[in-house]
Amino acid sequence: MDIEIMGEIRRKRPLIHCITNYVTANDVANIILAAGGCAVMADGEREVEDIVSISQGLVINMGTLKEGTIPAMIKAGKRANELGIPVVFDPVGAGASRFRTEACKRVFEQIKVSLARGNASEIKALAKALEENGRPQAPTPEAGRTKGVDVSEKDRLTEENLQKNIIFAEDFAKRHGIMCLMTGNTDIATDGDRTFLAENGTPMMAGITGAGCMLDGLAALFLAAQGHGGDVFTAALAAAAEGYCGQRAEERIREQRRLFPAYPAGTGSFRTFLIDGISCLTDEELKEGMKIEAWKR
Amino acid sequence: MDIEIMGEIRRKRPLIHCITNYVTANDVANIILAAGGCAVMADGEREVEDIVSISQGLVINMGTLKEGTIPAMIKAGKRANELGIPVVFDPVGAGASRFRTEACKRVFEQIKVSLARGNASEIKALAKALEENGRPQAPTPEAGRTKGVDVSEKDRLTEENLQKNIIFAEDFAKRHGIMCLMTGNTDIATDGDRTFLAENGTPMMAGITGAGCMLDGLAALFLAAQGHGGDVFTAALAAAAEGYCGQRAEERIREQRRLFPAYPAGTGSFRTFLIDGISCLTDEELKEGMKIEAWKR
Amino acid sequence: MDIEIMGEIRRKRPLIHCITNYVTANDVANIILAAGGCAVMADGEREVEDIVSISQGLVINMGTLKEGTIPAMIKAGKRANELGIPVVFDPVGAGASRFRTEACKRVFEQIKVSLARGNASEIKALAKALEENGRPQAPTPEAGRTKGVDVSEKDRLTEENLQKNIIFAEDFAKRHGIMCLMTGNTDIATDGDRTFLAENGTPMMAGITGAGCMLDGLAALFLAAQGHGGDVFTAALAAAAEGYCGQRAEERIREQRRLFPAYPAGTGSFRTFLIDGISCLTDEELKEGMKIEAWKR
Repeated sequence: MDIEIMGEIRRKRPLIHCITNYVTANDVANIILAAGGCAVMADGEREVEDIVSISQGLVINMGTLKEGTIPAMIKAGKRANELGIPVVFDPVGAGASRFRTEACKRVFEQIKVSLARGNASEIKALAKALEENGRPQAPTPEAGRTKGVDVSEKDRLTEENLQKNIIFAEDFAKRHGIMCLMTGNTDIATDGDRTFLAENGTPMMAGITGAGCMLDGLAALFLAAQGHGGDVFTAALAAAAEGYCGQRAEERIREQRRLFPAYPAGTGSFRTFLIDGISCLTDEELKEGMKIEAWKR
Repeated sequence: MDIEIMGEIRRKRPLIHCITNYVTANDVANIILAAGGCAVMADGEREVEDIVSISQGLVINMGTLKEGTIPAMIKAGKRANELGIPVVFDPVGAGASRFRTEACKRVFEQIKVSLARGNASEIKALAKALEENGRPQAPTPEAGRTKGVDVSEKDRLTEENLQKNIIFAEDFAKRHGIMCLMTGNTDIATDGDRTFLAENGTPMMAGITGAGCMLDGLAALFLAAQGHGGDVFTAALAAAAEGYCGQRAEERIREQRRLFPAYPAGTGSFRTFLIDGISCLTDEELKEGMKIEAWKR
Repeated sequence: MDIEIMGEIRRKRPLIHCITNYVTANDVANIILAAGGCAVMADGEREVEDIVSISQGLVINMGTLKEGTIPAMIKAGKRANELGIPVVFDPVGAGASRFRTEACKRVFEQIKVSLARGNASEIKALAKALEENGRPQAPTPEAGRTKGVDVSEKDRLTEENLQKNIIFAEDFAKRHGIMCLMTGNTDIATDGDRTFLAENGTPMMAGITGAGCMLDGLAALFLAAQGHGGDVFTAALAAAAEGYCGQRAEERIREQRRLFPAYPAGTGSFRTFLIDGISCLTDEELKEGMKIEAWKR
């Protein structure tokens, strides 16, 4: 199978409209540009519909959420639905506060999400909220549901719980008619019918902020470049691309440490190298480096 | 001609008040510090007048605009006008939404801008809005007016349209009694009477977010250090300084790629190297490296 | 004396809730992660109490302050007080505007701060505001009270004014029953009874934005990892850790400049190297490198 996504992105230069948080907005814009796309960050209620209208993909990321941004997210999402462009939804920190969980539910229910992207804790908290009629409960550390924006110990993907998580993600995707990209040691991309596992990545990615937010941007860009809303393999490919560049960045850290042992490179360099990697990534390299396999029950 | 701007900045350490977007605020602060100035980012309506009062320059950047920030921009601008300190205005994404375009018009009309800095699409959208009595029209990708915060294909500066763009910028500057810095492959700095072209820079600068926003900060800093509001040559010099450091950063990328071919440096490193370059830039180097020429009709 | 803080952080992975500014939020999150903690940035009034409830430390940083965020800061602080987790308060730019100064006073008075962290200008402006009954006066550059978010020339710690500043910090800490970390060439950590001076650091840290904000995050993390609210030596240790990694980053800059003289590294690299250093810092290295001494009158 030939991979042609990086070439497509650089030819089409899709514009991705991101409604995202102020912590990682710079990284998200930079990784979209690095991959060859264009990015516009805009979250004012009065302008998001105009901005969506000139865009080829939309990211809605719930980090650093303010009450006032929710209507902007819904307006942007609805306009994206009208235009048929892909909507990537990231329930950042769902489960970490009732407000977040409710807001995720509210936005999700009013728009047609193309792809939900989150760690296992977030996807489970979103799924639970969507099933509940009443109000979400307050988070408790004991419940193990969340560690803020990081996955809880309990929800961390392991070989043991992988199959259970795949089934969960598939059911979630099927129930809502969306694609789901549940990321962790293994990234699970599914539309309910077809499921791909991407094994790229390194634990170092959890050592920087924004690896998930950057993947939101890349996924929207990949889906936009593929056209027709994109499919679940392309979502897996976005995860594999970031994960592969993460692996490369880690190898580069090791090379740097070998060459300059007195002052070892660390997570600051890792972040730079990750974006470097995306900016240099070719389809040939991605095809060679990606570890994606179709999941068969 | 001797260039003494970097020395002046490092002697005077002007404080630049930036009302800017959350995507690139960190980069803008860092490049102002790198050049030798001080930066204070503050956009609360209740404090901007105080903050302007202790500053030597003001940046108003329309990125990630919220309705509530517009009064803060106007108050800050008016106070800066009273104090006679330079005001750099960046109509980020003007033309990309009616809200942005209107907000740009509203802010521009109520304050006395010293320097308008933007790409050709943005400056043209601003100029058009200022001429119109009615409401700006909705953006359309077909109109080619904007690619979000990036210049549209149609407006990209080329050898062919350079002269046309110069005349446009000169007319715009003259009509509003301001300086204009229209950036692209060639940067055009004009006050309507005198026009300078700066040819420094590299396409890689469009591969990171914030090159324009950083130039806003540098331009305000350069004008503040020059004193008496600064002149158009100094605005051109700010563009040349950033562009030259961009060229150097690109050369450094190439050096790094040659030395460490297994893990090629890319746009992540470029951003770091650009700021490195500004922090090491001397007047001698700038004088040697700048490619500024006076434009004669 | 053995130092076991880095090990503790990496074992316990405390979650630090940061209500901070959009300029340096990314750096703060990244340095907390680099040290081995977890970070969640959330400033929505409706969710901060939930977020604090799952956290082990709280940072309240007054940078890029909006009116609407003040109630969120107070709610978060009160909840942190109920839970007995450490609260680090940073009066960023206190003195630079009446609004900031008043807001600092308002937040400080309604919660129980564990540690106030700021430069000498900020701590003095906060102390003055807390003593005053009336409204703070408008800032004036002539008064030398502030250079925005940077220390004023007049307040810069020197050998001459060190003793005076120590006494000031001790009095301030004692009066309010808090710990105070006044940072500058020498960092002064005091709880009014015990005072430690940390001499680590380099002037290059003032060449990037966010060194202070990052220290807020590290201090909260160190105090959280120590448990029982932490003590003033641990606050000094956080300052020493950052300062030491700053020194190492500067040495690494020099090494890079020696190896690659054509394209000298600068402040962009410094920021990356600082975070690299924290991510690789061990207790052994910290013990060896820290320059902390107990102050005796």
